[in-house]
Amino acid sequence: MPLDLSLNLATVRRQWKLLEAVAAAVRHGFGGVAPWREMVDETGIAEAARIFQGSGLRVTGYCRGGLFAAGGAEKFREAVDDNKRMIDEAAAIGAECIVVIGGGLAPGSRDLPAARALFADGLAAVLPHARAAGVALALEPMHPMYAADRGCITTIKEMLDIADALGNDGVGIAVDTYHVWWDPELAPQLARAGTRIIAHHICDWLVPTKHLLTDRGMMGDGVIDFRAIRRMVEEAGYRGIQEVEIFSEEWWSRPGDEVLATAVERFRAVCMPEDGGRRTVD
Amino acid sequence: MPLDLSLNLATVRRQWKLLEAVAAAVRHGFGGVAPWREMVDETGIAEAARIFQGSGLRVTGYCRGGLFAAGGAEKFREAVDDNKRMIDEAAAIGAECIVVIGGGLAPGSRDLPAARALFADGLAAVLPHARAAGVALALEPMHPMYAADRGCITTIKEMLDIADALGNDGVGIAVDTYHVWWDPELAPQLARAGTRIIAHHICDWLVPTKHLLTDRGMMGDGVIDFRAIRRMVEEAGYRGIQEVEIFSEEWWSRPGDEVLATAVERFRAVCMPEDGGRRTVD
Repeated sequence: MPLDLSLNLATVRRQWKLLEAVAAAVRHGFGGVAPWREMVDETGIAEAARIFQGSGLRVTGYCRGGLFAAGGAEKFREAVDDNKRMIDEAAAIGAECIVVIGGGLAPGSRDLPAARALFADGLAAVLPHARAAGVALALEPMHPMYAADRGCITTIKEMLDIADALGNDGVGIAVDTYHVWWDPELAPQLARAGTRIIAHHICDWLVPTKHLLTDRGMMGDGVIDFRAIRRMVEEAGYRGIQEVEIFSEEWWSRPGDEVLATAVERFRAVCMPEDGGRRTVD
Repeated sequence: MPLDLSLNLATVRRQWKLLEAVAAAVRHGFGGVAPWREMVDETGIAEAARIFQGSGLRVTGYCRGGLFAAGGAEKFREAVDDNKRMIDEAAAIGAECIVVIGGGLAPGSRDLPAARALFADGLAAVLPHARAAGVALALEPMHPMYAADRGCITTIKEMLDIADALGNDGVGIAVDTYHVWWDPELAPQLARAGTRIIAHHICDWLVPTKHLLTDRGMMGDGVIDFRAIRRMVEEAGYRGIQEVEIFSEEWWSRPGDEVLATAVERFRAVCMPEDGGRRTVD
């Protein structure tokens, strides 16, 4: 029986290409993988789909959509079209959802509310396409240190408000511990999210953190209380797979098999719910 | 007439000691200074008080108190006593407030709610002393990237909730653009704060930000909309002095007079309220 753990392939993007990374995930007992678009593009959609299908693994997410404001209002249409293509790709590779992030400010802009509004507009524009394709949009709030250049939407509350406005059909929330652990509203907003939680990513916050993007931590090496967050997530109604996603110069420099073995060991040691051991994958 | 701008002395802590920094602030037309405890300690309280008084400048803040959880529960009493001493020092140098931050997790702890609770307990323990000394406590939420090691309280909302619980007498809020600019609740929480805003610090968010602590930006070099935030602050009822506070390897490496001249120029160019020019210091 595979683990209730998926491997986000960015975790080993320096070590392996798609085929090798998926084989390694199988070898280490993972229950799923989550590819990034670059890796799928490099391999080709049809071949990537064959690799995933042949592996027997779930494809727990496809990274990453959204970013509707990144090119400014004049490139909004392009961003919408690109997200639609990505939805088609996700359907072709059998991905359960697309991870969708807010995106940063438009070039030269200092208007964060405008970026947020453009994100909501973009979602509304692609949602019918996603619904028709049967691909869920997993809205991922990002840590506020990315508000300017990656994720203008920083809290679960904001993403839920947007999901509410869209009628909730076809959208859910991606809860990444790295992005949300600091949030004083974490418990009530996870409870509010309920079964709208459709992805649960894990990654630790290191002290000190030496780089804003590439110094994320292996679970257990930092200060995040994974069990406490998992408890909240499960109480809200999500008992599904967790997905390890670590951007780290340190872990990118180690052998891929060491990274995966460590992730599995740490998942068992610090991320499993208190009622214990391995459980059936949903 | 001096500017409605104070100089937080950390901005030039590499270039100058207290006496020189205060003289430079006068020379560049600043209306106030805000010293850190290390600089005052180095000079001695009595001498520092003479320097401030002789300068004719306001002492707009004394940095920085709080941090009640940093040593864990067993050092809580020491932290409270140290904050009381700091209040006495603030009174001795004529500081208008102490800037108070949440502090990080206790050593080895992953319990952010516990750190927050200890912060509230610490405030309650020192507040009678602060009231008796006539020194306001300016509660400063910090950017969430400091939640683990400096500021477990990350939003204006949390600080206002704590202030409410303490009865609001003798406490207020320090609004630092660098710490709060990303907050989706910024406008409503500033409105809620009202006249409880007692300090308004300015510093820009650079893209990219290369270091979590020492890559803060000069106003205008980053993405923060200073005028928009100033408008909210003024609408809430605070029309007082702004205080420039920049932790930056880059600006620490430049001549102090260049830093101050640039800060004054940028303050005039991008931080003044839209109704225009220089106004009387409160």
